[in-house]
Amino acid sequence: MKIGLLGCGTVGSGVVEIIEKLKGSLEIQRILVKSPEDCKDARYTCNYADLVNDPEIDIIVEVMGGLHPAREYILEALTKGKHVVSANKAVIAANFKEFVETAKAHHCYFLIEASTGGGIPWIKNLQRYARIDDIFEITGIFNGTTNYILDQMHKSGADFDAVLKEAQKLGYAEYDPSADIDGIDVQNKAIISAGIAHNTYVYKEEVPVFGIRDLTCTDIDYFHRKKKVCKLLAVIRCLNDELAVYVEPTLLNENSLEANVPDNFNICSLSGVTIGDLKFYGQGAGKLPTANAVVQDLLDIASDEAKDYEIVLDKTLKVNNENETHAYYVHTDKACETLQEISRAYESNADGVFYETGKLSVAKMHELSKQLRQQGYKLFFAGIRE
Amino acid sequence: MKIGLLGCGTVGSGVVEIIEKLKGSLEIQRILVKSPEDCKDARYTCNYADLVNDPEIDIIVEVMGGLHPAREYILEALTKGKHVVSANKAVIAANFKEFVETAKAHHCYFLIEASTGGGIPWIKNLQRYARIDDIFEITGIFNGTTNYILDQMHKSGADFDAVLKEAQKLGYAEYDPSADIDGIDVQNKAIISAGIAHNTYVYKEEVPVFGIRDLTCTDIDYFHRKKKVCKLLAVIRCLNDELAVYVEPTLLNENSLEANVPDNFNICSLSGVTIGDLKFYGQGAGKLPTANAVVQDLLDIASDEAKDYEIVLDKTLKVNNENETHAYYVHTDKACETLQEISRAYESNADGVFYETGKLSVAKMHELSKQLRQQGYKLFFAGIRE
Repeated sequence: MKIGLLGCGTVGSGVVEIIEKLKGSLEIQRILVKSPEDCKDARYTCNYADLVNDPEIDIIVEVMGGLHPAREYILEALTKGKHVVSANKAVIAANFKEFVETAKAHHCYFLIEASTGGGIPWIKNLQRYARIDDIFEITGIFNGTTNYILDQMHKSGADFDAVLKEAQKLGYAEYDPSADIDGIDVQNKAIISAGIAHNTYVYKEEVPVFGIRDLTCTDIDYFHRKKKVCKLLAVIRCLNDELAVYVEPTLLNENSLEANVPDNFNICSLSGVTIGDLKFYGQGAGKLPTANAVVQDLLDIASDEAKDYEIVLDKTLKVNNENETHAYYVHTDKACETLQEISRAYESNADGVFYETGKLSVAKMHELSKQLRQQGYKLFFAGIRE
Repeated sequence: MKIGLLGCGTVGSGVVEIIEKLKGSLEIQRILVKSPEDCKDARYTCNYADLVNDPEIDIIVEVMGGLHPAREYILEALTKGKHVVSANKAVIAANFKEFVETAKAHHCYFLIEASTGGGIPWIKNLQRYARIDDIFEITGIFNGTTNYILDQMHKSGADFDAVLKEAQKLGYAEYDPSADIDGIDVQNKAIISAGIAHNTYVYKEEVPVFGIRDLTCTDIDYFHRKKKVCKLLAVIRCLNDELAVYVEPTLLNENSLEANVPDNFNICSLSGVTIGDLKFYGQGAGKLPTANAVVQDLLDIASDEAKDYEIVLDKTLKVNNENETHAYYVHTDKACETLQEISRAYESNADGVFYETGKLSVAKMHELSKQLRQQGYKLFFAGIRE
């Protein structure tokens, strides 16, 4: 099968490398790059029309990132009857339903294994369990950058900014790290995972998200004392045809599996009625692991196995974070009466006040943190898993 | 598709339960049980001919366990053109090549997801990575009974026999626990995993195995002091077209992922050149998780997806455990000069002598332990992972 590759950066060059080594039926026909300077041979072009209008190209692989023109390119490819494989979680989460419906209308495959969990075979396995099981919980560590930062802060005691700089030097964090450290990347992956498992399109605005930007080494000291480890988790819980979906830092017991996920690894978990707990651990990003996931999709298209894994988003489940409750750790720079009233314990030192609230709904905590920030508080919070 | 079910014990009844809930194209046509007393309705029979000669039955599901008549039933089914799904690792490991070749000769599928890792989607994912990647290491915890015993011994400090009895009471260990605690069950799963990943049939005699029968709470005390956790691991390492394959207790750093696998859970890991480390965690046994894996295979047959996952054992890789080396912990009931000579450290107390050897080949350590046992030593050993 002949492939048109959109983008030849980290992941794209990995896709080329693996396909060339495979010596199978897959062949890179054209490669779209931004600038004529990036064109290494006759396969390269800066003109998308050279790919999308090439009748020999069966599949468009979109690994260019960003919302535009990725969205337009994907839609045009599908409309012209070309299968699409995408690793771009941002554009998928923003246009999931449109992509899926366009693919269906034009009898094309739309495959997205690499978008969530990187090299971890998360999407396919989630689809396989959804065909048998009622999946009542999905959770996990879906972002390698923040896991690297948290792991380093826990292990070295270093402060956030120092570790972030180190992560940027190692290529684990981008120059503008906002999408990672503010949890937006995980929010996108939660939207995708909820869609796969529950056939419903969850809107970005429905998923409260709190990142790790304001975590300090004073927080880490506190967690050490309580024998807890902080991880940034996505949670999707299905109960009575409603979904709780949210992203927040979470304090885990230090001997839990998630607490021991090191470096920039991810772990993606599902709980089903018959299968119990299943967890998938691996490289959530990086050139070759992500490219491997892209190539898995390509092989599934080549063998037509993809026919049994069509993504369907035809249900509308209500998102409700009011009934999802747990205790929270909250660190503010100054005393806060509202927090004190709802807390079972608190302490203070020169770095601020540290609360442990009673059980609180996710909706309420995320709303409260917004209000407090508007009132000028600097704060960090994390759910507490007992 | 119509199914003939061999055995309706724990896993078999789970298969019936899941299929009835699915309300799909799968249908249990006949169920083979041992005694007329077990026949609940007209589907039940004690006569295998009623299944294997029924032209309506497409698939035989073998969840009866044991070597005979399971082997003969599987071969007869395949010879008569019926697909076979088996969860029976013992019979598969003993007859892997014969089953695979008979299936091929008669154009049938032979699927074994439930045989290794129970509910964990290990076999299928291993096949998917083998199609792209060079898998250079497979390792993991492949037995829930021993993991439960080890976890309890570490957490409660109780002795082996007490924990084993508790495990038997909970249904985690069999009345005769030998296959589990002596590592034979893991050995079978190592043979199956090596076959899937490397297309080679490894013989039982080639896989040295050491179990946990002689582990004591004195050993656990020692491990606690060294901040290590003992797990029973299978290892398959591929180097220069040779395989190291062995099963032995292993001391892991207490913050490693494997060290934190609790209760009767399993974790199955592969390392590939492009994918890096991938780990799959879940219920390695039990009624519904194992039945779920059986049903996954059935759905893959129904959709014909199984056509791309034919097991092939057409290579002959040499098994060599001479070049696989690491340090070992050895506990003997009395002093041993041979061990002392090869050890970097040792200590003794009323419970015996505790050695930490220098780097030693797996072949050498397993051979030495046999010799020492023949000489009347009581001993336990475990590889040390630094």
